[in-house]
Amino acid sequence: MNIQSKGYALKQRPAGTPTLDCFELKTEIISEINDGQIIIKNLWLSVDPYMRGRMSDAESYVPPFQLGEIMQGSAIGEVIESKHPEFNVGDKVNSMLGWREYAVSNGEMVQKLPETSLPEQSFLGVAGMPGLTAWVGLNIIAELKEGETVLVSAASGAVGSLVCQFAKLKGCRVIGNAGSTEKVEWLKSLGVDAVINYKDYRNAAELEAALAEHCPNGVDVCYENVGGDHLEAALNLLNRYGRMAVCGMIDLYNLADAKAGPNNLANIVKKSLKIQGFIVSDHWEHYPNYVAQLSQWAAEGKVHWKETTRHGIESTPEAFLGLFKGENIGKMLIQL
Amino acid sequence: MNIQSKGYALKQRPAGTPTLDCFELKTEIISEINDGQIIIKNLWLSVDPYMRGRMSDAESYVPPFQLGEIMQGSAIGEVIESKHPEFNVGDKVNSMLGWREYAVSNGEMVQKLPETSLPEQSFLGVAGMPGLTAWVGLNIIAELKEGETVLVSAASGAVGSLVCQFAKLKGCRVIGNAGSTEKVEWLKSLGVDAVINYKDYRNAAELEAALAEHCPNGVDVCYENVGGDHLEAALNLLNRYGRMAVCGMIDLYNLADAKAGPNNLANIVKKSLKIQGFIVSDHWEHYPNYVAQLSQWAAEGKVHWKETTRHGIESTPEAFLGLFKGENIGKMLIQL
Repeated sequence: MNIQSKGYALKQRPAGTPTLDCFELKTEIISEINDGQIIIKNLWLSVDPYMRGRMSDAESYVPPFQLGEIMQGSAIGEVIESKHPEFNVGDKVNSMLGWREYAVSNGEMVQKLPETSLPEQSFLGVAGMPGLTAWVGLNIIAELKEGETVLVSAASGAVGSLVCQFAKLKGCRVIGNAGSTEKVEWLKSLGVDAVINYKDYRNAAELEAALAEHCPNGVDVCYENVGGDHLEAALNLLNRYGRMAVCGMIDLYNLADAKAGPNNLANIVKKSLKIQGFIVSDHWEHYPNYVAQLSQWAAEGKVHWKETTRHGIESTPEAFLGLFKGENIGKMLIQL
Repeated sequence: MNIQSKGYALKQRPAGTPTLDCFELKTEIISEINDGQIIIKNLWLSVDPYMRGRMSDAESYVPPFQLGEIMQGSAIGEVIESKHPEFNVGDKVNSMLGWREYAVSNGEMVQKLPETSLPEQSFLGVAGMPGLTAWVGLNIIAELKEGETVLVSAASGAVGSLVCQFAKLKGCRVIGNAGSTEKVEWLKSLGVDAVINYKDYRNAAELEAALAEHCPNGVDVCYENVGGDHLEAALNLLNRYGRMAVCGMIDLYNLADAKAGPNNLANIVKKSLKIQGFIVSDHWEHYPNYVAQLSQWAAEGKVHWKETTRHGIESTPEAFLGLFKGENIGKMLIQL
């Protein structure tokens, strides 16, 4: 048996925004596997903004991708051969062995999908890392309470769109910002109280003024995915004892040079703010409860999500680059 | 009975660093008091950096000083006349009726000093607001644990010098920065593991490099009093899950224009940092325990403090301005 498996390696580290020539398509040949191993045929690959960090060799919470090696990322696949006692052919699994068509594994860090009525690719999005990220940031990090006002940046993304809905389900007022008319309309259709298109505003002051119109009682919780002007506006809008869960700063990921931060950090003292970054992998203990709650909400029609799907392994780099151009509504996926 | 009481009113709001012409000496005449009132003769006045905020009319956690009215601040005084059932002539009291020689009060917000062996003026410093600020920031906000490494900015100030000592008493490694050789030497004599003079460094990068030499295992907790370059250096030095208690940003208090923030806020995400501002008045429930603990430490010679004392009501504005020039070691006081 010989399987030809295409996958993408990191060819060079990007300076600034990644480009297609950072990636190199490689073909691996998979033949015999040993006792204790399985072969996974990937069905769905995930690309996520955090991967930009792993393309650099700076110290971070996850180790950098190695040059010349196939990259990693979440993927949903099917076991097509097994010499491992815990996996059977036909099992659907979630692994970090993405950016490739097939993978050999000893089963470590490979999870069988739980029994739910959720579609398999949702375990890369709403029922996976982005979903739990939304839930943990809002409830554990930002300690959201019923009836509070929540501000969400990158509100139409895989994480942001769930943050908006989870906050609404908790009886909160939710204000989102997103980057296109289509995204704004979709979020409004989900019941988000107010949504602005940040591209209509030239700087932090204009953005703040636009958001302020929709926050007559200020903001109690900010779910921050972006940084930059959004962060600066949020610091001014937050109420005393406001909390900011910092999930990402996509604005900063592609900067070759450091960019000055917001000029209003004194708000942290003036208003006794809490600003906290987090990484979802520190909070997986909430995952079983989260998936149970999500399945129920989904069955009741209370949570909705969108997917932006590209097709074929060759579409993976462009799908990833599209994240930084705002090409996705909801989760960006590659179907193989 | 007619008492002439001199005090300082706010004459004009400062743009940038306050100057002497922001203050106006006024004389009030105190004559008869009514039932339920007391007359306090102030013995010690406190000036503190946070008062700069009250000189502006921007929204803050404490209301602004009113133009033309005698300013407020902590003071230790003696009751010299009482028509109030709970106060007797001779009682030593702590009040917010500072910036003046005498005050009339109905007893609200006036506390009798607890019975301790601590000197009366210490209730403006180590046994008062600055002391509790140090303790709360370190233990409640930054959740300091034994054996961690702590970085303290403005380490020789009324708050900072206690932060250093409380952290040492908890078995931590402590690195301070201060602004003169004398301050550095004093902190070293208190057992602080390493102290740098921040005036020897021209920017955040140099400051960071100097501090890094003394933090081989990084920094777990930063007690931030300054902002600016100190904050930027600290964000780079903090370890994963680091906590920053933001007590003040004295660097920013006197800026007429907003100043760009640190360029490395992405560390908040990368390292899952918690950055939290606080105001000690939200944490007074810890005060009785704190004073009990402090009294014991002081009796055992485990906590030391310095006072920088000016004399006479007329010295009050200059004492206050001196805070921003680093003229104080430990608590800045005015003895009347």
